[in-house]
This record gives sequence, structure tokens and C-alpha cells, in this order.
Amino acid sequence: MIICHEIGELKDFVRRCKKEGKSIGLVTTMGALHEGHASLIRAARKENDIVITTVFVNPTQFGPNEDYDAYPRRLEKDSALAEACGADLLFAPAPSAMYPHEEMTWVEVTGHVTMILCGRTRPIHFRGVATVCAKFFNLTECDRAYYGLKDAQQTQVLQRMVKDLFMNVELRLMPIVREEDGLAKSSRNVYLSQEERKAALVLSRSLAHAKEAFQKGERNKDALLTIVKNEIEEEPMSDINYVEMYEMPGLAELPETIEGNALLAVAVRFGKTRLIDNVILEAE
Amino acid sequence: MIICHEIGELKDFVRRCKKEGKSIGLVTTMGALHEGHASLIRAARKENDIVITTVFVNPTQFGPNEDYDAYPRRLEKDSALAEACGADLLFAPAPSAMYPHEEMTWVEVTGHVTMILCGRTRPIHFRGVATVCAKFFNLTECDRAYYGLKDAQQTQVLQRMVKDLFMNVELRLMPIVREEDGLAKSSRNVYLSQEERKAALVLSRSLAHAKEAFQKGERNKDALLTIVKNEIEEEPMSDINYVEMYEMPGLAELPETIEGNALLAVAVRFGKTRLIDNVILEAE
Repeated sequence: MIICHEIGELKDFVRRCKKEGKSIGLVTTMGALHEGHASLIRAARKENDIVITTVFVNPTQFGPNEDYDAYPRRLEKDSALAEACGADLLFAPAPSAMYPHEEMTWVEVTGHVTMILCGRTRPIHFRGVATVCAKFFNLTECDRAYYGLKDAQQTQVLQRMVKDLFMNVELRLMPIVREEDGLAKSSRNVYLSQEERKAALVLSRSLAHAKEAFQKGERNKDALLTIVKNEIEEEPMSDINYVEMYEMPGLAELPETIEGNALLAVAVRFGKTRLIDNVILEAE
Repeated sequence: MIICHEIGELKDFVRRCKKEGKSIGLVTTMGALHEGHASLIRAARKENDIVITTVFVNPTQFGPNEDYDAYPRRLEKDSALAEACGADLLFAPAPSAMYPHEEMTWVEVTGHVTMILCGRTRPIHFRGVATVCAKFFNLTECDRAYYGLKDAQQTQVLQRMVKDLFMNVELRLMPIVREEDGLAKSSRNVYLSQEERKAALVLSRSLAHAKEAFQKGERNKDALLTIVKNEIEEEPMSDINYVEMYEMPGLAELPETIEGNALLAVAVRFGKTRLIDNVILEAE
């Protein structure tokens, strides 16, 4: 696996691949890779001639009081995992390479899809995500890009960007990977104390209960939300940021009685750590 | 020449061209084609296997009190000219095709380059231009895109977008085409009364005088600006919007004494019609 830090070197690699008619799969990450990322790299490996993984803690998607500085960075471990999963090239640029000017060119998806859920408390987050992904899509000229459904809203924002700007990339959305006890894999799980980690299990547990109710026929939106809210609130260490439900895909508002598929998503703090999790309620 | 209105048809055409390894040159226009556009299409013809011209009066680059509705539309004439200049395909989409959602994904170049000159009075203009050009670049997968230096600021904004987002397109900037009497070709010239048209000649005349002074060694910024301002102000029908000067390329602020190349640009109203013109002062 090639490890590359410079844009020029990446572009040379991409140009060679393109000339040979090879398909390129992309997995963009902020590093601190875990089994969730690994599943994306493996999926890309299956469907493309070439797999590129990026490791870049993107400053523009962090708010001023968020964990940009603290975000775990461990490129050596990441390289080993990416290589083991079959990546051909790992691209780990410096922030100055990705943002050459202080005055930015932004790609911004506006409206409902970026205003709900995480958009309520992280107003600049998705602008940063869309901008950096647009850059990586252009840099790698990827045919397919792989995202985990743990960041469900992110996948829908990027889907909107790709459609609206007619980008020539197919987004492949992959299921959430969980620990054996149900906790969704996240690079931020390392922040959790032992106690917090145990308390955080309420997320996957309550979402599973809502799914169960849905599968048994419950279609009332508030009833489903209440199952999750009540169970999380019973956990003393939890501090709910949101428990919300939207149409999936697209995240449009739902009627009181759900008809198609829905996303039930939560963001909850345990101590200083904000975790997100979700479940897709599939009508069939 | 193929005339095409649907995105699906355009994408099929582009895919076929790409499969055959053909290079694609793009000329994006708002129609009402004149010799300026023709020179761009001819330049694209020389440098590419395939030439695509777009005709689209882009609603998002017009302010609420601007001439979106009045903007001249004449697709038949445009088609004939584009074909005569060697275009292979003319793409004329409906606004609903280019903007499928009411909630937009914007591409926005921020900072100095979009705040000066036309950015002062047209605050949303360049966001609309950048967004629609990003869409056309992605739709056509063009290798080169051609823009006239009459819209000098637009060329620099797009250059910034392409660099910042690492777009895989080369911008080719072409000289201003003028009427025999010096008036810069513009689709908006049709708005001018005979008297206004005559009065508007002061733009090219005054810019030529500034260039003359520059070539004779004048390097004082204010002195050069004053030549142009005074001469335009002497014309009773003129109403100056701006007369400004910046570094070229890039449009950074200039010191009082100019060292490299500079853009001297003007926007002036004659009656209801706002015209722009400029000259590049080249140090060598």
C-alpha cells in the first residue's frame, strides 16, 4: 500500500489508474480507524479495481467548542488496518494542502436535510463535510465512495450534494458495525470512561426496542420516539441532545402515522462525549 | 450538431465520448450568442475532440431587481451560430433540470475575490455562477472550459473554485472581443438606445487611454484610475458603478505603485443598462 501526503503524488497515481481504465473506490475517514471503517474498505475492495482511503481530521467540520484538537490521531495503526483490508493507497494530507487559501470555497447543502438532527447544534458541520468530500471526490476521481450509515444524516447530505451538483460518483451506504454488546463503533468511543461506556449501551438497546415495536406493527411516530426517549432518560448518565425520526431516504418530515421507511436517530452525551446512533425502520 | 435539453441525453453523449477517449471542451453561455461567444467556441474547437456549448439563462446568478426575465432568449439563432463555430452538441436545459430541488446545494467562493467589483452590488451573483458552472463541469466532464476576459472577475472566481475544489478542468481565458468602434461585445448591448450605445464608447476609450499611460510608464494606481474616472464622468449619460484596479491574476489588492500586472475594470450604467469592461495592464 502506498502512503502518500502530497496532492501531486495522489493526482499522478489517479491519472495512471484512469489511463488504465481502472475503477476507483474511495473511503474518506478522519482516521482512528475501527471495524466500521474496515467494513467500508473491504466493500470498496470487492467492487473496485483500486481502493483509496483518506485519513484527514477535517478542521472545517468541527465547531469552535468541539474536539478537533483532541480527536484521536494514529496514522501508523490506521495504515496497518487499511492495508490489511486491501487499500491500495492511503492519502493523509496536511490541512494546508486541503485548504490552500484562507478564503474558502464552500460546498453547502442548504435546507431541511442539514438543519435537523446534528444540524441543530452543529451549524457548520455539514458544510465542512460536503466541502471536504467534494475535494476528495475530485482529487481521487472515484467511481464509488463508501459511507457508513452510523452517520446517517451525513450520507443523506452527501447524497443531496452528489445529485444536485451532478457529481460522477456513486455513494454506497453500508450498515452500522457494532461491538458485541451493541455499542456502535466510533472513533469517539475511546473518550468514554468504563462507566460511561456501559451507560452508552442504552442507545442501541432502546433503538432495538423501537425496531421491535415497529416490526410488531407500531406505526405511530410519537409512540416509537417515546420508547427510545423514555429508555434513554432512565439512564442517569445520559444527556439527550436529540431523538428524532424522518423519512428514509431523504430525511423529509414524517406524518404522524408512518407509511414507508424511517430513520430513528439519536445524539446523546455521556460525560463530555457526544455519541450518535440510529436504526432504519424498514416497512417490509 | 446535436441539440439536447435533457440531462440523461447529455450524460449518454458524454459517456460515449469518454469511452472513446475523446477530450471535451465546454463553453457555458446564457445564450444571445455574439462574436465573443463565437471566439470561445472556435477556441474550444481547436483544442478538443468534442465541443459542448450550453445555453442556460441561470436564474441563481440574477438578483431580485435584475434582468432575468428580460434577458434575451433566442435559441434558434444561438444554435445556428454554435453549429457554424463547430460545436458538436448544444445543451439547453430547463431551470427545473438544473435545479431539481428547491433547497439548493451551493458552491460559493468567499472572501475578497467575490466581494470587490461586481460583488459589491451583486452579492449573490458569483455564488450562482460558481454553482451552475460546477454543475456544468460535472455534467460534461469537460477537460477544458472557455471563458472570456470581458467577465474578468468571473474568470478569477471560477479559477479559485477550480483550484480550491481540485476540479479536473483547465480554464482557458480568452481576450475580449469588441465591435469595430471599441464597444465590448455583450448580450446586454441590445438594451442600449442609439444614443446610449454611442455614449458607452467612453468605456473602451478611457480604458485604452489608461493602458497608453501605463505603457508609457505610469505606475501610480490612483493616476491610472483617475484617467478612466474623469473621462467617463465627462460623458453625461454615464453613471459609474465602479472603476477599480486589482492584481491580475487573482485580484488581490494593489500597492499604490503597481509592480506586476493589473486589471482595470469598470461597471457603468447607461440608462437602465449596466455595462462592464476592463483592460489588463501587462508589465512586459
